[in-house]
Amino acid sequence: MSKLRVAVLGAKGRIGSEAVRAVEAADDLELVAALGRGDKLETLVEAGAQVVVELTTPDAVMENLDFCLRHGIHGVVGTTGWTDERLAQLRTWLDAAPGAGVLIAPNFSIGAVLTMRFAQQAARFFESAEIIELHHPNKADAPSGTAARTAQLIAEARAEAGCPPQPDATRTALDGARGADVDGVPVHSVRLRGLLAHQEVLLGGVGETLTIRHDSLHHSSFMPGILLGVRRVVDTPGLTVGLENFLDLG
Amino acid sequence: MSKLRVAVLGAKGRIGSEAVRAVEAADDLELVAALGRGDKLETLVEAGAQVVVELTTPDAVMENLDFCLRHGIHGVVGTTGWTDERLAQLRTWLDAAPGAGVLIAPNFSIGAVLTMRFAQQAARFFESAEIIELHHPNKADAPSGTAARTAQLIAEARAEAGCPPQPDATRTALDGARGADVDGVPVHSVRLRGLLAHQEVLLGGVGETLTIRHDSLHHSSFMPGILLGVRRVVDTPGLTVGLENFLDLG
Amino acid sequence: MSKLRVAVLGAKGRIGSEAVRAVEAADDLELVAALGRGDKLETLVEAGAQVVVELTTPDAVMENLDFCLRHGIHGVVGTTGWTDERLAQLRTWLDAAPGAGVLIAPNFSIGAVLTMRFAQQAARFFESAEIIELHHPNKADAPSGTAARTAQLIAEARAEAGCPPQPDATRTALDGARGADVDGVPVHSVRLRGLLAHQEVLLGGVGETLTIRHDSLHHSSFMPGILLGVRRVVDTPGLTVGLENFLDLG
Amino acid sequence: MSKLRVAVLGAKGRIGSEAVRAVEAADDLELVAALGRGDKLETLVEAGAQVVVELTTPDAVMENLDFCLRHGIHGVVGTTGWTDERLAQLRTWLDAAPGAGVLIAPNFSIGAVLTMRFAQQAARFFESAEIIELHHPNKADAPSGTAARTAQLIAEARAEAGCPPQPDATRTALDGARGADVDGVPVHSVRLRGLLAHQEVLLGGVGETLTIRHDSLHHSSFMPGILLGVRRVVDTPGLTVGLENFLDLG
Repeated sequence: MSKLRVAVLGAKGRIGSEAVRAVEAADDLELVAALGRGDKLETLVEAGAQVVVELTTPDAVMENLDFCLRHGIHGVVGTTGWTDERLAQLRTWLDAAPGAGVLIAPNFSIGAVLTMRFAQQAARFFESAEIIELHHPNKADAPSGTAARTAQLIAEARAEAGCPPQPDATRTALDGARGADVDGVPVHSVRLRGLLAHQEVLLGGVGETLTIRHDSLHHSSFMPGILLGVRRVVDTPGLTVGLENFLDLG
Repeated sequence: MSKLRVAVLGAKGRIGSEAVRAVEAADDLELVAALGRGDKLETLVEAGAQVVVELTTPDAVMENLDFCLRHGIHGVVGTTGWTDERLAQLRTWLDAAPGAGVLIAPNFSIGAVLTMRFAQQAARFFESAEIIELHHPNKADAPSGTAARTAQLIAEARAEAGCPPQPDATRTALDGARGADVDGVPVHSVRLRGLLAHQEVLLGGVGETLTIRHDSLHHSSFMPGILLGVRRVVDTPGLTVGLENFLDLG
Repeated sequence: MSKLRVAVLGAKGRIGSEAVRAVEAADDLELVAALGRGDKLETLVEAGAQVVVELTTPDAVMENLDFCLRHGIHGVVGTTGWTDERLAQLRTWLDAAPGAGVLIAPNFSIGAVLTMRFAQQAARFFESAEIIELHHPNKADAPSGTAARTAQLIAEARAEAGCPPQPDATRTALDGARGADVDGVPVHSVRLRGLLAHQEVLLGGVGETLTIRHDSLHHSSFMPGILLGVRRVVDTPGLTVGLENFLDLG
Repeated sequence: MSKLRVAVLGAKGRIGSEAVRAVEAADDLELVAALGRGDKLETLVEAGAQVVVELTTPDAVMENLDFCLRHGIHGVVGTTGWTDERLAQLRTWLDAAPGAGVLIAPNFSIGAVLTMRFAQQAARFFESAEIIELHHPNKADAPSGTAARTAQLIAEARAEAGCPPQPDATRTALDGARGADVDGVPVHSVRLRGLLAHQEVLLGGVGETLTIRHDSLHHSSFMPGILLGVRRVVDTPGLTVGLENFLDLG
C-alpha cells in the first residue's frame, strides 16, 4: 500500500515539531514537507502533499487553506480563531473543491474530546453536574476554555432533555465558594504548582455519582488525534468541525 | 394522560420495597399491586397491571414471566440466573405474545451502565486499560461481577479494533501485585471498611489518561433505571437485554 | 478491670442515640445513664457516672457542665457554640474541680481531624494549597465549617514558616471560578446529589502534588473519636480543645 | 550572611545536574564544585566545600564519604546500596569527625516522605489499609520500593498499636485480584501509559475513609528536599537516616 503524503505547516512550533516527528514515525504516512514561517506554499505542490497539518496562526491559516484547497490538498487544522465569517469563507472554497476535506479541531486530545462527549451523553441522567478543572499556576484564564465548553455542552444536553435546575440549598456562602456559573453548571478552577492540565466532570444522582476525569500531561497527547484526523479526512469531503466526528462513537 | 399501571413482584425484598416506593412517587405511574412470596399472580390481572417489575429469585422468575406474557403484561426484570436455555424459553413465550416486551437488566444503576459503555467506547483509543474496583470488606468475591464484565467489554473492543497487547515491562513482581488478568485487562480489588461499591476504569495513552469512576452509595441508585425501564418497555416489543439499550446513546 | 461508667446527655438525638449504642458495645465501658431533654441531672450522680458524653444544644450545655464539674464528673463535649466567654467560664469551673477533665471537640471524626492536622503539617513545604469540599445539595452553607477551618490552619502554618503568597497568574476569570478566598487559601464548594461529606486538600510544589482526602459516609464515623475521648479525658485534667490532642501524633 | 559552600558529586547524572542548577539558583547557597566520574576529590578541599551532595553510585559512595569526613565536610546522600555493614563503617568515620553530619535519604521527595509519615501515623486509627501505586508501563518491578516500604511502615504501626488483622470476607477470588500481600497490607500495582509515579494510601474505618495520594511528575521534585537536607545537615552532627527527621513533624 502506498503511504499517505503529509505536510506540516507551522513545523517549527511546539506542537508542529512534535507533529513532524509523529508523521515520520507512522508506518502508513510519509512526511513530504515541513514548512515554517516564510517558506513557500508551492513546495506543497512540488512535494505532492495529499494532506496538510495546519498548525500556524490565525494570521496565516486562511491563506494557507485557500492555497491547499485550490490544489486539492486536504487539511487537518489545529489553528484557532474561527469566526462564523471565516467558516463561511472556508465552506465556499470547499464547495469549489469537490472531494477535498477539512477537519477543524479545537482540541486534538482524544481524552479531552471523549470527556466532553461522555459528559454530554450522561448529563441528562443525573440531577447534579459540576466541573473541576485544575491547571498549573501560570495559566492566565479561569475557567479553561475546555471546561467552559464542557459546561455548555452539559447545559445544552440538560435543557434538551427537559431537566430541572440543579438542586442547591446554599443560603449563606463566601464569595466564589460555589464556583463560576456557566449556563447553570458550576465550574471550579484550581491553580496549583506541580499540576499540568486536568479536568473532572462530576455527575450525581440519588445514591450514586459518575466522575469522568482527564489528565493531560504533555502536548504529545495531541498526536494520536492529529494522525487520526489525517487518515480520516481524505475520505471525508467537506467541512468537519470537531475530532469527535471521526471517533465512530455511534 | 392516564397513568401506566405497574405491579412489583418481590415487593418485600430490599430492592423490591424500594421499587414500590419509587413507583408510588412517580407522577406518571400507578402502583396497582405489590406481591410477595405466596401471593397469587392472578392479582396482577385483576389489578389491570400493564408492566411488572420482577425482583424475585431465579426459582420464581420463569413462572412469573410465563404468567405475565400469557396475559400480555410487559416485564422489567432484575432477577439473575439467566442461562442460554432460559433466554430461549423466554423468547418462545415472547413470540407467542406479540406486542409484549421484556427488559432483562443485570444492572439497573445508570451510572454503572454508562461506565461500562464509555469504557467500551474509549478502550481502543488508549494503549493501556486497567480497572480498580473498591468495596466494603464483607464482599465474598473478587473481582466484582461488574468489574469482570467491564474488563471483558474493554478486551472485546480492543480486539475488534486490532489493538496490540498492553505495554508492561514488569520483570520482577510480588504475587498478585499486578492484579487479576481478565482477558488481558488487569483488575485490582480493594476491600476497605467505610467503602460501599466503587469502580474506576483507567485508560492511558502517550501524555494523557482518562478515568471513569462510578461510586454507588445506596441501592436507591437502581430506581431511576427501573423506572426508565418501565416507561420504555411498553413501546419495545420482544426481548431487550441490558439497560444501555434504553439510554439512547447513539 | 472495672469498667468506666459513662452517661450520655442528649441521648435521643441522632448522634446521641448512636453514642448510646457505641458505649454499650464497648467492652471497657458501661452505660449508666442516657438522658434526654427534661431528664434530671441528679440521675448522673445516682448512677455513679464518671464521664458524661455531652451531645445536647448550646442552650443546655453550660448548665450540664456546671453540674458535672461540681460533682467531679469528666466531660466529652460535642455541642457547639463556644465563645471566649463560655470557655473562660468553663475554665473557672475546672479550676474549682481539681482532677476533672473536659474535652471539647468541634469534630469527632478521626479522619477529619487527621486531615486537618496533616494539611497543617505539610502546608509549609508546598508553594500552593487549595481545598475542594464536596457535599450533598441540601447543605445550607458554603464552604463547610471544616473546610474553612482547614484553610485557616494552612494559612497560619504558611505564615509562621514565612511562605510567600501562592503563585497565581490568573488575569481574566469568571466570577467565582477561583473559589472563595479564606486567608489566601482558595476553597471550592461542590454540591452534588449522591454525595455526603467529602474534603480534599491539594498541596503542590515543583514536580509533585500531595492530596489528602477525607470521605465521610455516616455519622457513625464519630463514634471511635467519642470513645477515644471518653477513655482519655479521665487522665487529662483541665480543658482540652480538639480531639487531635488525644491522637498522640507527636 | 555568608553563603553555605556546596559541592555536588555525580554532577553529570540526571539528578546530579538538576541539583547543580538548584544549588546555583538558591540565594543562600554557593556552588563551589561540581564533580563527575574521574574528577579529583581534592578539588572539594581546594574549593572550600562545607557540604557535599552525594549522588553517585554504590561503587563510589564509600570512598567519597570517607574523604569528606576526613576533611570535615558534611554529606547529603541520595546514593543507594546501604547495608548494615556500610552504615556501621560510616558511623565509625563520623565518630572520628566530631561536628560533621551525614544525611542518608532513600527518598528526597518531600511529598513521598510526608505520605509515608502520615500513613504511618494514621494507620492505627483505621480497620483497613491498602495501597495503590501507579506507574508508567516501563517500570520493571512491582510493587514500587516506596509502596512496599509504606506498607511495612503501616504494618509496623498497626502491630505496635495492637490492631487486629484487616477485615476481608473474600472467599472466591481470581488470582491476584486482592493484590500483593506486604506484611498483611494489600498493595496493588497499576502500569499505565501516560502515568509517571503515583501512590495512594487508602485507610478505612466505620463510616469514613482517609486517602493520602502523592503524584510525582518530575525528578525536579527531589530538589526542595535536597536543599533542605543541605541547610539542616550542617547543624546536625552524626548520622541521620531519612529526610523525615528534618521536617520538624513533631
